[in-house]
Amino acid sequence: MSENNASAKLSSARLNAPTDAFVEAFTASVEFDQRLYQHDIQGSIAHATMLEKQGILTATDRDDIIRGLEAIGESIAQGNFEWSIAQEDVHMNLEAALTESIGDAGKKLHTGRSRNDQVATDIRLWLRDEIEVVRDGILRLQQALLDLAEREADTILPGFTHLQTAQPITFGHHMMAWFEMLVRDRERFADCNRRLNVLPLGAAALAGTTYPIDRHYTAELLGFDRPSENSLDSVSDRDFAIEFAANASILMMHLSRFSEELIIWSSAQFGFIELSDSFCTGSSIMPQKKNPDVPELIRGKTGRIFGHLIGLLTLMKGQPLAYNKDNQEDKEPLFDTIDNLQGSLKVFAEMMPGVTCRKENMRNAAMKGFATATDLADYLVGRGMPFRDAHDVVGRAVAFGVAEGRDLSAMSLEELQGFSETIEADVFEVLTLEGSVAARNHIGGTAPAQVRAAIERARTAITQ
Amino acid sequence: MSENNASAKLSSARLNAPTDAFVEAFTASVEFDQRLYQHDIQGSIAHATMLEKQGILTATDRDDIIRGLEAIGESIAQGNFEWSIAQEDVHMNLEAALTESIGDAGKKLHTGRSRNDQVATDIRLWLRDEIEVVRDGILRLQQALLDLAEREADTILPGFTHLQTAQPITFGHHMMAWFEMLVRDRERFADCNRRLNVLPLGAAALAGTTYPIDRHYTAELLGFDRPSENSLDSVSDRDFAIEFAANASILMMHLSRFSEELIIWSSAQFGFIELSDSFCTGSSIMPQKKNPDVPELIRGKTGRIFGHLIGLLTLMKGQPLAYNKDNQEDKEPLFDTIDNLQGSLKVFAEMMPGVTCRKENMRNAAMKGFATATDLADYLVGRGMPFRDAHDVVGRAVAFGVAEGRDLSAMSLEELQGFSETIEADVFEVLTLEGSVAARNHIGGTAPAQVRAAIERARTAITQ
Amino acid sequence: MSENNASAKLSSARLNAPTDAFVEAFTASVEFDQRLYQHDIQGSIAHATMLEKQGILTATDRDDIIRGLEAIGESIAQGNFEWSIAQEDVHMNLEAALTESIGDAGKKLHTGRSRNDQVATDIRLWLRDEIEVVRDGILRLQQALLDLAEREADTILPGFTHLQTAQPITFGHHMMAWFEMLVRDRERFADCNRRLNVLPLGAAALAGTTYPIDRHYTAELLGFDRPSENSLDSVSDRDFAIEFAANASILMMHLSRFSEELIIWSSAQFGFIELSDSFCTGSSIMPQKKNPDVPELIRGKTGRIFGHLIGLLTLMKGQPLAYNKDNQEDKEPLFDTIDNLQGSLKVFAEMMPGVTCRKENMRNAAMKGFATATDLADYLVGRGMPFRDAHDVVGRAVAFGVAEGRDLSAMSLEELQGFSETIEADVFEVLTLEGSVAARNHIGGTAPAQVRAAIERARTAITQ
Amino acid sequence: MSENNASAKLSSARLNAPTDAFVEAFTASVEFDQRLYQHDIQGSIAHATMLEKQGILTATDRDDIIRGLEAIGESIAQGNFEWSIAQEDVHMNLEAALTESIGDAGKKLHTGRSRNDQVATDIRLWLRDEIEVVRDGILRLQQALLDLAEREADTILPGFTHLQTAQPITFGHHMMAWFEMLVRDRERFADCNRRLNVLPLGAAALAGTTYPIDRHYTAELLGFDRPSENSLDSVSDRDFAIEFAANASILMMHLSRFSEELIIWSSAQFGFIELSDSFCTGSSIMPQKKNPDVPELIRGKTGRIFGHLIGLLTLMKGQPLAYNKDNQEDKEPLFDTIDNLQGSLKVFAEMMPGVTCRKENMRNAAMKGFATATDLADYLVGRGMPFRDAHDVVGRAVAFGVAEGRDLSAMSLEELQGFSETIEADVFEVLTLEGSVAARNHIGGTAPAQVRAAIERARTAITQ
Repeated sequence: MSENNASAKLSSARLNAPTDAFVEAFTASVEFDQRLYQHDIQGSIAHATMLEKQGILTATDRDDIIRGLEAIGESIAQGNFEWSIAQEDVHMNLEAALTESIGDAGKKLHTGRSRNDQVATDIRLWLRDEIEVVRDGILRLQQALLDLAEREADTILPGFTHLQTAQPITFGHHMMAWFEMLVRDRERFADCNRRLNVLPLGAAALAGTTYPIDRHYTAELLGFDRPSENSLDSVSDRDFAIEFAANASILMMHLSRFSEELIIWSSAQFGFIELSDSFCTGSSIMPQKKNPDVPELIRGKTGRIFGHLIGLLTLMKGQPLAYNKDNQEDKEPLFDTIDNLQGSLKVFAEMMPGVTCRKENMRNAAMKGFATATDLADYLVGRGMPFRDAHDVVGRAVAFGVAEGRDLSAMSLEELQGFSETIEADVFEVLTLEGSVAARNHIGGTAPAQVRAAIERARTAITQ
Repeated sequence: MSENNASAKLSSARLNAPTDAFVEAFTASVEFDQRLYQHDIQGSIAHATMLEKQGILTATDRDDIIRGLEAIGESIAQGNFEWSIAQEDVHMNLEAALTESIGDAGKKLHTGRSRNDQVATDIRLWLRDEIEVVRDGILRLQQALLDLAEREADTILPGFTHLQTAQPITFGHHMMAWFEMLVRDRERFADCNRRLNVLPLGAAALAGTTYPIDRHYTAELLGFDRPSENSLDSVSDRDFAIEFAANASILMMHLSRFSEELIIWSSAQFGFIELSDSFCTGSSIMPQKKNPDVPELIRGKTGRIFGHLIGLLTLMKGQPLAYNKDNQEDKEPLFDTIDNLQGSLKVFAEMMPGVTCRKENMRNAAMKGFATATDLADYLVGRGMPFRDAHDVVGRAVAFGVAEGRDLSAMSLEELQGFSETIEADVFEVLTLEGSVAARNHIGGTAPAQVRAAIERARTAITQ
Repeated sequence: MSENNASAKLSSARLNAPTDAFVEAFTASVEFDQRLYQHDIQGSIAHATMLEKQGILTATDRDDIIRGLEAIGESIAQGNFEWSIAQEDVHMNLEAALTESIGDAGKKLHTGRSRNDQVATDIRLWLRDEIEVVRDGILRLQQALLDLAEREADTILPGFTHLQTAQPITFGHHMMAWFEMLVRDRERFADCNRRLNVLPLGAAALAGTTYPIDRHYTAELLGFDRPSENSLDSVSDRDFAIEFAANASILMMHLSRFSEELIIWSSAQFGFIELSDSFCTGSSIMPQKKNPDVPELIRGKTGRIFGHLIGLLTLMKGQPLAYNKDNQEDKEPLFDTIDNLQGSLKVFAEMMPGVTCRKENMRNAAMKGFATATDLADYLVGRGMPFRDAHDVVGRAVAFGVAEGRDLSAMSLEELQGFSETIEADVFEVLTLEGSVAARNHIGGTAPAQVRAAIERARTAITQ
Repeated sequence: MSENNASAKLSSARLNAPTDAFVEAFTASVEFDQRLYQHDIQGSIAHATMLEKQGILTATDRDDIIRGLEAIGESIAQGNFEWSIAQEDVHMNLEAALTESIGDAGKKLHTGRSRNDQVATDIRLWLRDEIEVVRDGILRLQQALLDLAEREADTILPGFTHLQTAQPITFGHHMMAWFEMLVRDRERFADCNRRLNVLPLGAAALAGTTYPIDRHYTAELLGFDRPSENSLDSVSDRDFAIEFAANASILMMHLSRFSEELIIWSSAQFGFIELSDSFCTGSSIMPQKKNPDVPELIRGKTGRIFGHLIGLLTLMKGQPLAYNKDNQEDKEPLFDTIDNLQGSLKVFAEMMPGVTCRKENMRNAAMKGFATATDLADYLVGRGMPFRDAHDVVGRAVAFGVAEGRDLSAMSLEELQGFSETIEADVFEVLTLEGSVAARNHIGGTAPAQVRAAIERARTAITQ
């Protein structure tokens, strides 16, 4: 746990270091890019394998390299590896360790590649894996939403526009709105991974290499769809990082909106839901508090992800081709985005089953606020009145209700007929909450039957 | 041309207006959303057609509505329509004009819909069209790049990393790097349009409607792939706007990087290219100037597009469902993004054919800076030296060259052999610029043969 | 009102224009920078006056120039001026008109200056004026808040943390929180204007001029504190624009937070306040709605201002010195920021007096939620119990109250003593709402006496 | 060095943790906010001192608390403190350790305060100190610039606009442009610290406290200018963090622009400067490279700081009063901004003395590009020609020079007189580089005398 403290001291130590040591530490990336070590090894093994196939390495050298790299990977996983700032980055640390371990063969590994295409390969391999974890996280949240939507398919609450009571809806329908947003999110990440899944290795420094390499073979070994088409583009492209950060921003925006609702619904005034205690905390001074900490924190984390997106766009904006040192700054925002995104998805998915609906409060709220006013207007239109005239009739009835403190459904037939003679006794059916929601019975509508059908379609879709 | 001045006066007039008029103008959107009028009419005609099919409107009413709307569209196109701030937005302006023109039937048009789903439909219809214009603009720029790349497939210039001479490349290869970025851009916009192409109409205010509407039919009439799955999501979703703005930001980032290069290359010190006079301007004080105005301006416009992306993300971030007035702010950033994006693409495409390569300068620059140092290292590796040792040998040769002011190719065989006895007379082949580029002969490499093959593949791909 | 439509057509016309006309329109700025015409004239008159004083212009030339410019200004104000895109920007339009009107003297006006220092001067003059309008707008909103705070200094409502009932506060105290934020905002704009108020004129293109100009005199004529210290900095500096946009973003963030509260408080569930009808609108489909449109719209406008800030930062980020065409993009974000900021401040100030407190609802809400739990803990500490122990005692009492559905003040003495024998009959004084707020009687506390004192201090401070 | 690796493992361990442990870790802040421990202790000691003065604590309790906190501080500094995630944050960790160490007196420390005002106090104390380090860093860079400017006050290079040769300037003048930007930066941070230096402690949870505290005394003890005016504002205000991030963004924008120039000037094509080897690195594949890594990295870090600004603005944007958990997200962006800002300033200041001017290259570049064309125009105006006419004459002379490949100073008097008979033999004085720069002899101009005077004024100003 003392790592940040250590880092604070390190930072201050650095500010007081002599120039050379300070610059070395300032420009080194090994502190954070060591996170890529597994993918760096994965890429190097594929590279060595290809070099041997092409006759550029001997089989012995290749085998030594692979064994050496695997041993280093093992040692890092066990926490026994000594990272060195003098070796600057993860790539040089691994290569130096390899050469120390296996001798001259280690010096041959870098044949036909450069750190420029190597790091581009590493980061793509790493992000490809992490995006799959993100997509799984989305899926788990979607499943939690489907379960909740099914459980509460008949639970009525007021739907809001402008945070004003609009029309009755069902809680299941509302949950399915969040589900739909996540459908688009998952798709966007898949699209990003498709564009990402192209091999840059072989671009070398920027122009390709003079060795007779086989980039199709390396691509195949690493599970890439194809080698990249242009070496200059390969070493300078970070589109995938920006696209990923944009997708992450949209997803976090969704979670932030959802959090905003959970917070408002958890207030004493709304009282629509209760969150499980595990996702709330108390107060150091007010013993009665139960604060919806998790949704608030996720709402707060959204800005951070937006910031990383802007950081990455700004990073790339003015750079001429090909590789520039600026690009070293691509990693930390990506790492932080991944950590916060995966954590937020997990905590949200685990929070969902513990959402308790306080149905009485929801129902009472829906009964107030003239939530079925639109139904009355539709009733009048159904009897031949132009919509805009019906809108006016209902407007007057609502004004009367506001003055009297009574909902439409609590008025007498005579009172209602005072606003329009078209109204008859069957009007009260459309003024009930159940009647109102059931009547919105088309694809996308809030009728429980439609919600159940949507859940069923969704269950099928996400298993494909 | 005096429109902005008019608007400045208007704005100041407003600040001094009495409260009601001021608030009316402050909250109205008709000044900018009138731009959607054609798509609003398109959506209304489809809606009326569906209502008639479902027996909700009579055929006469439908026909009156369609004729009325078409006449209004015509009148707007001819500049004869009186927009009214009192009518708030484009929707109410059109509906009021329709009712004035055709009477009661006009009041029936709004049956089974709300402004919430109406505006969501309009903006999707509009953006779908504009995205196609953007994609065509990208295509035209790609074609210009292919022509330029083909013209200059053999032109050699120094490739840079860190803006330091790295290795010789060809101008055609360099142009193809920009081409590749645009391939991803076009794909991203297509992905965005796929997600966008879903019908929100029928979601009404937020919960669906009680009328027996046929949303599949409306979707078909408007060329949408399907109706949306959830009414709450339909009226509150602006993902497509953010995704579009993110794609626009990445594209502008590419154009900004390209502009940066054109500006640097146009400097007297580089002198690699000359831009056509039409894309440059002079100075009010320095008669000798020829400024690369167009690339500078596009570089400058990039920030504006990043800003719109952040604006839209922030806009949506904290909103609970469903529609809130905040969303009115989604349009102006989209409109401005479209205008600047389409303009930037067009001006870039037209600028490309007039790019003149000053080949002598490029070649001279490539001759300096030890651009073939990597080739020498590769030569040594090819003779069995481990890569890291070869790297050291060349490092010493370069240091000697720097001290002597001579390139590697200008050293004698004896001098070169002083650094390694492995070097023989055939080394001079790999030290020529032509030898160097030709040797990078694999997919993605800078060899002219590879560049030509890439151009051919690209020409086939973009016609599909 | 048809200006945007006109602009849409213009934009599309441009996309189809021949290259030269298209580039001319793409790079011209006169459509938006004509807004600076008064300040351009002001700067030119001062420049001519200085040139004459230094013997660079004759008195006759100076007088002709001043008369000519004044006549042009008049003609623009009356809408009779023909702006020309071929003349590119406001500066060239005015100079061309001047020369046409007064002949050769007009050609002499540009002596010893360049458009680079001219536009820098114009934008500073313009922004300086607009910032004063912004500061007045803040002041008016502050005054409205003071009046409201005074009116409601004794009105009790629950204070929230985490949107959970925390402790009783007064509405007046709450309004004074917003007042305090605006104090900082006004200060920040004053700081910005102080840094802005430096004369760039005389920097010419970038290096100064060979004419014997007197920059101190020009500074004095234009009300600048001093001439700038470095010519390269003078023409390339846009810090003031970014600092202004950052201040605007913080101010809009405050208005957005305030709006968020007004929206939540206007919900049927909270029911704490009612906004005047002028600041709300109805719904096209739900006749019962009264939507808090103005706060929602301002909340929405916040993202737009954040976007302009990012746009300006990005704009400047990678530019080498001195002036680059990129900088033309500094104006539109500034203009839009000013318009939205001034409008938002005005509408907020006018909205305040019409905020009605629904005191019964506020009071009832404060009675629930154990808002005085902290007071009980403080009571126990006052009797010698360590704070953390008191916190535990109250925690148990609250748990009991939650189970029983009763507030602390509704428990019997015996029940309370069941949690701690330290409790005596005087406990009920501290459990009342009035007792709770009155007890927070120190500077910054919510006691009505403190709020009134704060209002008094504030009234004095803002008149200084 | 293995801290990030540890953190990666931790993060992945967390994703697989059981819910309670996962949520605990997800919501805890102690991993990063422990960085505030010294300031937390400083605030607590002042708080205890005030409580004793007011008779709320006994002198013994106060002394125990102070001794206990000092011992804990010592233990943390020595790395012997066990941070606990179960204790959530730095405040609870310290309080728990205190109580464990000194018993009941520890439980009394939290009397009359809350974590809400405590953390607000800590972060202000911490940032106040760090801002002073930043201001010192700016000062040191300014001093390095003054030295460099003085050293190169007579060194002539071409000044650029649009990256095109504009007019000759001196290197000293150019350095002083960067100096001026830093003057504004330092001022802005001082303004920020002035607004920051207000005591929030005493606001307690949000409403103030019922204890008879003396906030003026606490303010005095902690060196704050005054206690804050409003308790709600005190716990929810993060303006200072945003203002700081905005100032940091502007400063980094300046360093990024400066870096851009250093990179361009270091290119082989410009060859204007050489950076010291310590600030550059080589290439893993190209032995000849000397890359300006430090400027590139700083240019890259700029986006990250912009991102933090946007993150903080977004964080605060939609929050109702008073404290919300979202605010926990304010620290990491601040910490990262501080680390990168201080590091960038230090590395820049150390890099300056090692900047070598390649004067011959600068001079040759200035000789080309018709850098003295404006001087010729001014010469003509000095002989009575209207400026716009002189501009035309020079335009023709330059066109001739371009065609002939000769600069103005290389033309014969006859050739020059062919463009205007006004030209006489003394023209050649104004066409020399020295003549040109010397002639810009007014405040802000590039004349060496002016530059020296500016340096002198600056040396005086920064010592005040």
